[in-house]
Amino acid sequence: MNIVDLIIKKRNGHELTRDEINFFIEGVTNKTLPDYQISAMLMAIYFRSLTARETSDLTMAMVNSGKSLDLSKIEGIKVDKHSTGGVADTTTLILAPLVASLGLKVIKMSGRGLGHSGGTLDKLESIPGMNTELSIDRAINQVNEIGIAIIGQTAELTPADKSLYALRDVTGTVDSIPLIASSIMSKKLAAGSDSIVLDVKVGNGAFMQDIEHARELARSMVNIGDRLGRRTCAVISAMDRPLGNNIGNSLEVAEAIHILKGETEGRLKDVVIELGAYMLILGSITDDIEVAKSLLERNIKNGKGLDKFKEFIKAQGGDSRVCDDISLLPVAPVSYTLRAEKTGIITSMETAKIGMASIALGAGRTYKDEVIDLSAGIIMHCTLGDRVKEGDIIAELYANDIHKCHAGADILTDAIEISENESQPLPTILEVIK
Amino acid sequence: MNIVDLIIKKRNGHELTRDEINFFIEGVTNKTLPDYQISAMLMAIYFRSLTARETSDLTMAMVNSGKSLDLSKIEGIKVDKHSTGGVADTTTLILAPLVASLGLKVIKMSGRGLGHSGGTLDKLESIPGMNTELSIDRAINQVNEIGIAIIGQTAELTPADKSLYALRDVTGTVDSIPLIASSIMSKKLAAGSDSIVLDVKVGNGAFMQDIEHARELARSMVNIGDRLGRRTCAVISAMDRPLGNNIGNSLEVAEAIHILKGETEGRLKDVVIELGAYMLILGSITDDIEVAKSLLERNIKNGKGLDKFKEFIKAQGGDSRVCDDISLLPVAPVSYTLRAEKTGIITSMETAKIGMASIALGAGRTYKDEVIDLSAGIIMHCTLGDRVKEGDIIAELYANDIHKCHAGADILTDAIEISENESQPLPTILEVIK
Repeated sequence: MNIVDLIIKKRNGHELTRDEINFFIEGVTNKTLPDYQISAMLMAIYFRSLTARETSDLTMAMVNSGKSLDLSKIEGIKVDKHSTGGVADTTTLILAPLVASLGLKVIKMSGRGLGHSGGTLDKLESIPGMNTELSIDRAINQVNEIGIAIIGQTAELTPADKSLYALRDVTGTVDSIPLIASSIMSKKLAAGSDSIVLDVKVGNGAFMQDIEHARELARSMVNIGDRLGRRTCAVISAMDRPLGNNIGNSLEVAEAIHILKGETEGRLKDVVIELGAYMLILGSITDDIEVAKSLLERNIKNGKGLDKFKEFIKAQGGDSRVCDDISLLPVAPVSYTLRAEKTGIITSMETAKIGMASIALGAGRTYKDEVIDLSAGIIMHCTLGDRVKEGDIIAELYANDIHKCHAGADILTDAIEISENESQPLPTILEVIK
Repeated sequence: MNIVDLIIKKRNGHELTRDEINFFIEGVTNKTLPDYQISAMLMAIYFRSLTARETSDLTMAMVNSGKSLDLSKIEGIKVDKHSTGGVADTTTLILAPLVASLGLKVIKMSGRGLGHSGGTLDKLESIPGMNTELSIDRAINQVNEIGIAIIGQTAELTPADKSLYALRDVTGTVDSIPLIASSIMSKKLAAGSDSIVLDVKVGNGAFMQDIEHARELARSMVNIGDRLGRRTCAVISAMDRPLGNNIGNSLEVAEAIHILKGETEGRLKDVVIELGAYMLILGSITDDIEVAKSLLERNIKNGKGLDKFKEFIKAQGGDSRVCDDISLLPVAPVSYTLRAEKTGIITSMETAKIGMASIALGAGRTYKDEVIDLSAGIIMHCTLGDRVKEGDIIAELYANDIHKCHAGADILTDAIEISENESQPLPTILEVIK
């Protein structure tokens, strides 16, 4: 088999066989293919796309490029959840203990934040003492004991995906639906769960800017799951503004606690309930979406979700007293109140830019391994479509010095448009792809 | 300027500015851009193409990546000619002395054969003593004295093109019209002539398999010439079968001599006359195509073309007696006569495969720097559309051992279809793009 022939085959719009895809991914994994041929293939895939069959073969080839987790020692149905990322998206922290409190087994590998998107590991680590660097064996034991573990991704999973992603990032081939879908799904499959609920974000704070592309990505991932024997569904949810009110690590933990306590309603909770309901359905707890939602609401009301969160924090070495006293979370020394400069309706929020404002405050990374300020961030006091009066509080900004607050406030001001136009917010949940 | 932004810009179908193209080509030349980004850009160009403006800017950037020949010391109008390559295409050997005998200045940089296409330097070197490795200064002096020099390409011209071509070859990005056009034209422009006549071959022995692509390439190259101030025209000629009767180095020299002597008519001569006429027009010898053709015919009849060929051979150290006695050219020790296996019409000739038959005989290269047998080759006794009877001679094959003859004969037999179907040969000259 000759890689140039395969590049030309794909370039000319033909379907690659499973053997050809395996040859390509083995060459990527073993580093026998030079990067310039890999990048040419990636660009050809960008233009010609991949069929559903090719995409699932590519996914499986990437899964096979490394080790997969063997979760057979965990009894019960393991359900995973993945979000394509956004701003003020704290769903995992709420969702994982909530569904675990209803009997699902959740072993979740999460990442750190980069760019405008936050990362679950960073958020968890704002809880004093919390350890996310558990071994797989310890995580499996923990799931068997309390139903939940959230840990960092091990390097051994899907090395081919890691190589391809690094190359896509520098060759203009990131935004290809089958490449995104296979990258996400290969990691989820290697992580070993039986079922996967995907949260595909759409809007100006998401990777997918419009519903057509979001739907295409969702369908592609659900297809991969179906073909490779995992129960999968995808919820398409809005990221045309920050999902929750709080942006930044300890601030998002605080909001998660508020929601688990039943103190806060709103869009973040709505997404949690929607995703959680599908997790319960894929996990065979119920087959009725309304029953699933009421189970989740019940375990917020009766405190079992919060209890599970406490159990989880304790199991991973954290100080679970934060759930009763959020002042035990890191608190930024400096704050700044941003007020509306004029009266009007909030007609647009540049969500990615709002994420950048939180980076300016110190809450996020612009490069891998950058040290961040877990206490920094933003509490939004208004959202898309709200009417505000001049002088109303738009947001409170937190950082370790006032200059960062001013820098963040400038970006935030720039990201929020107040006018007399109509606003057209997206519905929180747009579609569910099963 | 960021190369990833430029790749994405081109990938999304936008036009690159001159500065952006210069940045790209400078990165190629200085090796500051990694190959994987260059190949991603090339694949994006393959899919999105380049506008006429981008193509000429790319060409000029490649010209500027190295030295250009300064031909100002040559008096008179320097006219160059380039063929996209084919089988039994000996036009240069006939054309160059013929137009030089009419007063044009021809300084031609030629190449060696690779794959099914022959190379002018190899053919010339089958003339005993012939030296093609002249310095530029010596070649310029020779052109001032006798009007003609044919030499190998110096490495210093268009290094960016050399790098890009090497990468295109291994990344499935060879067959892009603007990349082919800019590659050819950058070399021609750097070679310094005032005017360029292009011979764009079309058919199964050519790079361009159909007239639409050939026309597109021809137009693209003529456009580049026009934009960059060189008088350029392109003749589109047929390569749906070998152009001349002889394939192989010394055999093609022999055929060139026959044509210069006026002993052989046919398609090869027709192409020589067509290209030569446009060289005379671009070289301002005449502005009438019929006058130009009659001048060329006259200098065949009166022997002045042949005399110029002799002068040229002598000037470059060769034995010009070959023109009077072709047995002084290398002769293969073994020959084999291929006869028709059945009666019928030659309805198709797979021309590239016929070129491969000559490689099997030892006449051509499958890889760079391969040593070839200058005496080996094929004399075709029939062509497309001819009616043959079982047992008629199809071709004579020449090599240094009989096994090679048999191998070549097998390929040749396979390449020639004899049937009772209608044949649809292309006209020798299809179009002229000015």
